[in-house]
Amino acid sequence: MKTIESTKNERIKAWKKLHTKKGREQSGLFLIEGEHLVEEAIAANVDIDAIITTREEWRMSFSGDVFYVTPVVMKELSQTESSQGMIAVCKKKNWKQPDSFSGTYVLLDRLQDPGNVGTIIRTALAMNATAVVCGKGTVDLYNDKVIRSTQGALFHLPVYHGDLHQWIDACKDVNTPVIGTALTNAKPLDKNVTYESFALLVGNEGEGVQPSLLEKTTENVYIPIQERAESLNVGIATGILLFSLQR
Amino acid sequence: MKTIESTKNERIKAWKKLHTKKGREQSGLFLIEGEHLVEEAIAANVDIDAIITTREEWRMSFSGDVFYVTPVVMKELSQTESSQGMIAVCKKKNWKQPDSFSGTYVLLDRLQDPGNVGTIIRTALAMNATAVVCGKGTVDLYNDKVIRSTQGALFHLPVYHGDLHQWIDACKDVNTPVIGTALTNAKPLDKNVTYESFALLVGNEGEGVQPSLLEKTTENVYIPIQERAESLNVGIATGILLFSLQR
Repeated sequence: MKTIESTKNERIKAWKKLHTKKGREQSGLFLIEGEHLVEEAIAANVDIDAIITTREEWRMSFSGDVFYVTPVVMKELSQTESSQGMIAVCKKKNWKQPDSFSGTYVLLDRLQDPGNVGTIIRTALAMNATAVVCGKGTVDLYNDKVIRSTQGALFHLPVYHGDLHQWIDACKDVNTPVIGTALTNAKPLDKNVTYESFALLVGNEGEGVQPSLLEKTTENVYIPIQERAESLNVGIATGILLFSLQR
Repeated sequence: MKTIESTKNERIKAWKKLHTKKGREQSGLFLIEGEHLVEEAIAANVDIDAIITTREEWRMSFSGDVFYVTPVVMKELSQTESSQGMIAVCKKKNWKQPDSFSGTYVLLDRLQDPGNVGTIIRTALAMNATAVVCGKGTVDLYNDKVIRSTQGALFHLPVYHGDLHQWIDACKDVNTPVIGTALTNAKPLDKNVTYESFALLVGNEGEGVQPSLLEKTTENVYIPIQERAESLNVGIATGILLFSLQR
């Protein structure tokens, strides 16, 4: 085990760059934090570059580089208020494009809240979705808050970045219906209509799905809510729609 | 309009105490922040003690006390990173106990995450629930993060604090079924079973609903999820259950 005691150490400086989207894009690396997530990543065979910990007593079935750091150095690297003293530097995974476009897909159009994106990925895994697709303008998947909210689901479920127009076309080409969500020009969600395969398209917290995508869908639906309520949280709406639409 | 320029002003010191649960309990007051929430509160006839703003140009149909403060004073009072320069001091509302225990109730057992509680209140309003009941050990309703996540739903939907054992009894006394959520000794949620009236009981993020409550329910259910997924977020689960169980 190597020990790092200075916040000016070159490795620490390099890892700190992973706090920004730019740093993550340049290196293809990202950080995960907390013993539970690190164990999940190891169990899921995530490609881990290094584990950084304050806890000398910590042992795990991990054959790669482990760096012991002082609490001060850990604080420098940590992005949570109460660091659990363990961080892993992971390589981003490039998921293989799907062979067919059948299954259950969740398409995210310009979602901004990291907690929403993370929770949707967690929910999509639980609901046995095939993949999540982040369209342009959606918050960076490797943002620490997204990762925390996925609760490890990110390691198990394919998440793609892509052009949603192309994804919609690809689904429709193989007769996978694409269900958009919209408050106008849409049908109320019917509990009795379920699909074997479908793609669900949800949109930005304030603006919803952009019109050019809604025009391409097979159908657009909304979840009926009572008048005094403004809207549902997009994560909640996605959970309800996935549950309701799946056969 | 009165102007306050010092963070040492007695009113400012008194309002700052509302950042803590103790301060809110002693005074029966709480703070809301941001123009949108303040407008919602005024529209919903919330009893507002004072409005505090940095914006002299701001005008609203509000007849009570308005205090103009400097940005430095606002920063002292604000609990968000990007204050929108507007805070209201509101009186807690004591909702009248329901006459009957029919309708849709959401019972929260020891929920800890403010975002979850706020989102559940927002979802419950949207789903036309009758009320939300916070059992002992649930995070304080007037926590700023809870209020922010409710998106104003708090002003429209009765939210009670109460003994969940008693609430379960009261529902069962009038034949309102109480549906608990549990991962063991529970049935998978059946999309085809719906209720005119019911109470839904959800529990702590890590531990779920406590056994002594689960023993009293009419029935306990779980949402079937795939093996690799650990669990659903409690807010998502509540959304799915409310949607699925309601007739």
